[in-house]
Amino acid sequence: MSSASFEHPFGISAHINENPRILSPKLDFSSVKFPSNVEFSRLHLSPSSAFCSFSKEYGGQINAVRDGGKVTTPVLDTIKSPKQLKNLSTKELKQLADDIRSELSFIMSQTEKAFRASLAVVELTVAIHYVFRSPADKILWDVEEHTYPHKLLTGRRSLVNMPGETTDVSDCTCHSESIFDPIGAGHGCNSISAGLGMAVARDIKGQRERIVAVISNETTMAGQVYEAMSNAGYLDSNMVVILNDSRYSLHPKLEEAPKTPINPLSSTLSKLQSSKFFRRFRELAKALTKRIGRGMHEWAAKVDEYARGLLGPQGATLFEELGLYYIGPVDGHNIEDLICVLSEVASLDSMGPVLVHVVTREDQVVEVGQDQMTEIPNSLQEGIADCRTLSDCFVEALVSEAERDKDIVAVHAGMGIEPSLDLFKNSFPDRFFNVGMAEQHAVTFSAGLSCGGLKPFCIIPSTFLQRAYDQVIHDVDRQKIPVRFVISGAGLVGSDGPTQCGAFDITFMSCLPNMVVMAPSDEVELAHMVATAAQIDDRPVCFRYPRGAVASISNALCCGVPIEIGKGRILVEGKDIALLGYGSMVQNCLRAQSLLSKLGVEVTVADARFCKPLDIKLVRQLCKNHSFLITVEEGSIGGFGSHVAQFISLDGQLDAGVKWRPITLPDTYIEHASPQEQLTLAGLTGNHIAATALSLLGRTREALLLMC
Amino acid sequence: MSSASFEHPFGISAHINENPRILSPKLDFSSVKFPSNVEFSRLHLSPSSAFCSFSKEYGGQINAVRDGGKVTTPVLDTIKSPKQLKNLSTKELKQLADDIRSELSFIMSQTEKAFRASLAVVELTVAIHYVFRSPADKILWDVEEHTYPHKLLTGRRSLVNMPGETTDVSDCTCHSESIFDPIGAGHGCNSISAGLGMAVARDIKGQRERIVAVISNETTMAGQVYEAMSNAGYLDSNMVVILNDSRYSLHPKLEEAPKTPINPLSSTLSKLQSSKFFRRFRELAKALTKRIGRGMHEWAAKVDEYARGLLGPQGATLFEELGLYYIGPVDGHNIEDLICVLSEVASLDSMGPVLVHVVTREDQVVEVGQDQMTEIPNSLQEGIADCRTLSDCFVEALVSEAERDKDIVAVHAGMGIEPSLDLFKNSFPDRFFNVGMAEQHAVTFSAGLSCGGLKPFCIIPSTFLQRAYDQVIHDVDRQKIPVRFVISGAGLVGSDGPTQCGAFDITFMSCLPNMVVMAPSDEVELAHMVATAAQIDDRPVCFRYPRGAVASISNALCCGVPIEIGKGRILVEGKDIALLGYGSMVQNCLRAQSLLSKLGVEVTVADARFCKPLDIKLVRQLCKNHSFLITVEEGSIGGFGSHVAQFISLDGQLDAGVKWRPITLPDTYIEHASPQEQLTLAGLTGNHIAATALSLLGRTREALLLMC
Repeated sequence: MSSASFEHPFGISAHINENPRILSPKLDFSSVKFPSNVEFSRLHLSPSSAFCSFSKEYGGQINAVRDGGKVTTPVLDTIKSPKQLKNLSTKELKQLADDIRSELSFIMSQTEKAFRASLAVVELTVAIHYVFRSPADKILWDVEEHTYPHKLLTGRRSLVNMPGETTDVSDCTCHSESIFDPIGAGHGCNSISAGLGMAVARDIKGQRERIVAVISNETTMAGQVYEAMSNAGYLDSNMVVILNDSRYSLHPKLEEAPKTPINPLSSTLSKLQSSKFFRRFRELAKALTKRIGRGMHEWAAKVDEYARGLLGPQGATLFEELGLYYIGPVDGHNIEDLICVLSEVASLDSMGPVLVHVVTREDQVVEVGQDQMTEIPNSLQEGIADCRTLSDCFVEALVSEAERDKDIVAVHAGMGIEPSLDLFKNSFPDRFFNVGMAEQHAVTFSAGLSCGGLKPFCIIPSTFLQRAYDQVIHDVDRQKIPVRFVISGAGLVGSDGPTQCGAFDITFMSCLPNMVVMAPSDEVELAHMVATAAQIDDRPVCFRYPRGAVASISNALCCGVPIEIGKGRILVEGKDIALLGYGSMVQNCLRAQSLLSKLGVEVTVADARFCKPLDIKLVRQLCKNHSFLITVEEGSIGGFGSHVAQFISLDGQLDAGVKWRPITLPDTYIEHASPQEQLTLAGLTGNHIAATALSLLGRTREALLLMC
Repeated sequence: MSSASFEHPFGISAHINENPRILSPKLDFSSVKFPSNVEFSRLHLSPSSAFCSFSKEYGGQINAVRDGGKVTTPVLDTIKSPKQLKNLSTKELKQLADDIRSELSFIMSQTEKAFRASLAVVELTVAIHYVFRSPADKILWDVEEHTYPHKLLTGRRSLVNMPGETTDVSDCTCHSESIFDPIGAGHGCNSISAGLGMAVARDIKGQRERIVAVISNETTMAGQVYEAMSNAGYLDSNMVVILNDSRYSLHPKLEEAPKTPINPLSSTLSKLQSSKFFRRFRELAKALTKRIGRGMHEWAAKVDEYARGLLGPQGATLFEELGLYYIGPVDGHNIEDLICVLSEVASLDSMGPVLVHVVTREDQVVEVGQDQMTEIPNSLQEGIADCRTLSDCFVEALVSEAERDKDIVAVHAGMGIEPSLDLFKNSFPDRFFNVGMAEQHAVTFSAGLSCGGLKPFCIIPSTFLQRAYDQVIHDVDRQKIPVRFVISGAGLVGSDGPTQCGAFDITFMSCLPNMVVMAPSDEVELAHMVATAAQIDDRPVCFRYPRGAVASISNALCCGVPIEIGKGRILVEGKDIALLGYGSMVQNCLRAQSLLSKLGVEVTVADARFCKPLDIKLVRQLCKNHSFLITVEEGSIGGFGSHVAQFISLDGQLDAGVKWRPITLPDTYIEHASPQEQLTLAGLTGNHIAATALSLLGRTREALLLMC
């Protein structure tokens, strides 16, 4: 497919019924290659620094990397399946861990991949696969970033190890990808719930496999983890929960907590607590006190738990209160300790849920000096600095609004913090709230801020807003509380694939009665919508923007001017066919218009801006003056097109003869691919839109040519 | 509006392309008066028993009730605003509490209202309003059941006190209803998040009002509460969280936990802990140890917290770990204690979030004997026993399937357990899992059960499924894991109003690529869909049914037979106009057909059964043979009608001339009213549908007559 260029999409300035402003030539940003880790990177530090850190500690293999050659991985090369780990000596297991670390470091140095979180769990992964028998035993991870060592050990090395390519490996473990992945890990915090389900199913079916659910301190912010632990404590099924405490956490409390010293005492304590003797003694003591009487039993149990609470790290009793037997902390980089503790845990029957607290050292990379970082060639940093993302534009516009309006505050939730937000955070540290992976709280917290007289902008990626849907409805929309939802990562997200795809937000937000639902077609409109949202103070409002870069030549700060609510605009006037685009798809409509123009077809292009309230005057005008109306959106069925259809049906426009065609995301999950490939798969490129128009005009041959 | 009766809606049996079965005459169940506390009562015990219990304890006023007279409420009668409480003596406050209890008990005895949960917080509410200054101070409740004493004290006595009427008072505190309700309480578990937002807003704005968020042990199951507490602990804003520990809880752990004895020690301890001296001493100690060094500081803090943990009840340290200062337990029925503790807490500045653990005695009603209960006239029990609900039919069908298939298990989540489920629970105690208010966990847990080889039916009311939307997408649909979602409370819910209304599920479920989305039109179809869902084992499926009773004469157990996936059916064949109903609205289409038939208009009525996959053959047939196609659903825009519209647009049917009209729920929240009133407001009655048809035929006058 040729990439037709159009230089002045807004050339016909007479059609822009806006406050006059300088229009810079733009490119179709949906066709710009997204820098995959710019806008929504899950890790704050660039992979190069992680690489440096490990190069320092695990030196040797690193020179090979610097020379561009392949690292040597003698033990990893022999592993095709995790059962082969059983025959390895401790020394070989250690070498295996080193091999995995070298392999991942090497890939990281050569590609844009971020394996930093995975590097922290190398020894843990080796120990788990040594002690447990996957796939019979079920090993569940709660975030995809931790799964790369697991993938290397479970026959998927070839998928991981393809330096230089961007579409090589799925970013999530997946139920359908491998028998070693009992359930997919993408959004985080699901592993205990799913693992508990499997444990209960196992018990009902009278089987005996072990269930191991790994959680991380990032996901201990998420409410579901507490729901799951509490239910696990109640159901008392045998399962092992491993807390990968990487000490690199968004959890405000854990972040500020003193680092747990992994001292001889705690190491001994862990071993002691997990030994059969100690646990059987406790069982015996409990059984004994049960007979003596309730009061005594409780007291004994309390003394036991609180004594361990006093000696153990902060957080221990929290897990005990929820009903999990706490063991730890264990040094997550000491394979012998890990194997010892996990073996003891694995050998026990009918003990109920156990939590093993493993401390890993992901945060050491923070200590790497700037001078060391620059020594290493880094393909990653190229091309990022000069790439301004839509997220950057949004934050600049928000800062600009916040400078004028002291009531504006920002609340952010999601799996990682978007680096663009640093600008707001640094400008207004007291007006920025990052709650981490706690979307439900973020939304209701924003409602509270609004009730308290502030103007909250609640920034959540589309796919994670799903997690707070009830709060959006119950705590905001139903009560008509002015909260401004900023939906990032809307639509297709390239290499992050279906897990992070923001396909459904237009549909699930625009059915809510009080919500104003809008989407900007470019970064200038984005700034206007920030200003508009700041101004709307009597009901909730949301706007979405896709991941990706803007190609504006000018880096000038966009100064937003509020637009009229429910007012779309016509960008190009034509006849016969009207293209009514929503959000980012307006650009592809313009591209289609450019293609069609060359073929002698003059079409109208309109930017709906609002899905709700719909610009019914504009829609009526389009229906009256055209034989065909094509609605185009980067979202699922039930959204913008459906709102237009319902209106033109009830308004009698459909009866009057206009033919409506919706172009939406297809009814399928689009797998990870480059953004352009995904758009092509989805049928949302300018060529697709133009081809649809040609088909409607009966010019089928030309339509087919466009699709070649 | 006259209620036209039709006796044999399925009279034309030739049109039913199903396995033959006996069709009993049915009434339009949407027109049957819902027994408001039958299907989804939030409280298990009938109000009469609560009434008995309190009559025993607070005797005196009770005789007046038995005589049918009004109780005397001398102090309550003088209260028009909470500020008037400030002048009352302790004795008068106690009398006020008695007055409130008498008033609520009286209303309960005369109406169908369930105030049992509110009766437990009478003293607590009085104490809160005595100590704090609402509306300047913000008092947030987390479930509506606890808010009636609050309503009585905040000028809404006339709204509560209307015996005999069903639409007298909104079932939720509401932001817009009163200045004393800072945010609405309907779905539970939002009070800390919202309160924290208000506290932060207060601090930013430099104000000094107090924030009091009440939570209950029911909502401590919900993940959002943990997200909120953890964030509150981090942000360290001043706020008071009151745990109303009613010891009547769905929380499995708390339910089984030994009842905390409210002994002199704990009472003294509470007072001690909340005294300025004690807290200032702690502050001093902390400041001192901070200077001495980190290790010492931590040790001191730990000793303090764990010492209180040892002496206090189970759960204390859990809150401390999350960053809230724990005080308690306090006797929730001792006004003097409550006032003492709350006054101390209210007078403290800059202490961060405090949790006051208040124990109330809701569960004592269980002890009332059956003989006492029957002595009191009870209008409530009439009419319930012989009312079979759709929920009953569902559970019977599920039990029947589960008897044949040992892999079927049931998972239930929501604010209360539906009494109908007891049949399943009692039949298969090991295959029933009630996780309480933990919807997110329920869905992923079901996915885990499915991965483990079982066949989970995950039963969640429509409005609460919103809370687990991301889990439905990420953990089930994207991975195509067969989980069967049973969506109860779909559509309008009568007196429970907009908070519990299940308006959006068709829209938000049918946009998911792998989901089979269906809805039964009556209880026989419901049984068939249970059988169908049990059989579908390669992808997720959901079906919805409304709250309400069935009017089938026969109480015979429906035996479900799987129906073909994506296969609708024509019930009545006519011409010109086709009515395509989805779910419960098929009955109203039949009613419209009956009305229209009398006016000489012969319409076709079809039961779509599936929103996804759509029966495209059926839809094509309807389009080809009719000038008008009206889709009817009890759901928001973006659902069934939108799926039909998108198909008939892309299929060219719209171009060929069929005129489509969608009838959906209107784009507004429909306030609490009787079910029939709500349907009328929504424009979803048989008359409305018939009127729409007449309008399309140009018979406007007749259409208007139908609407009179």
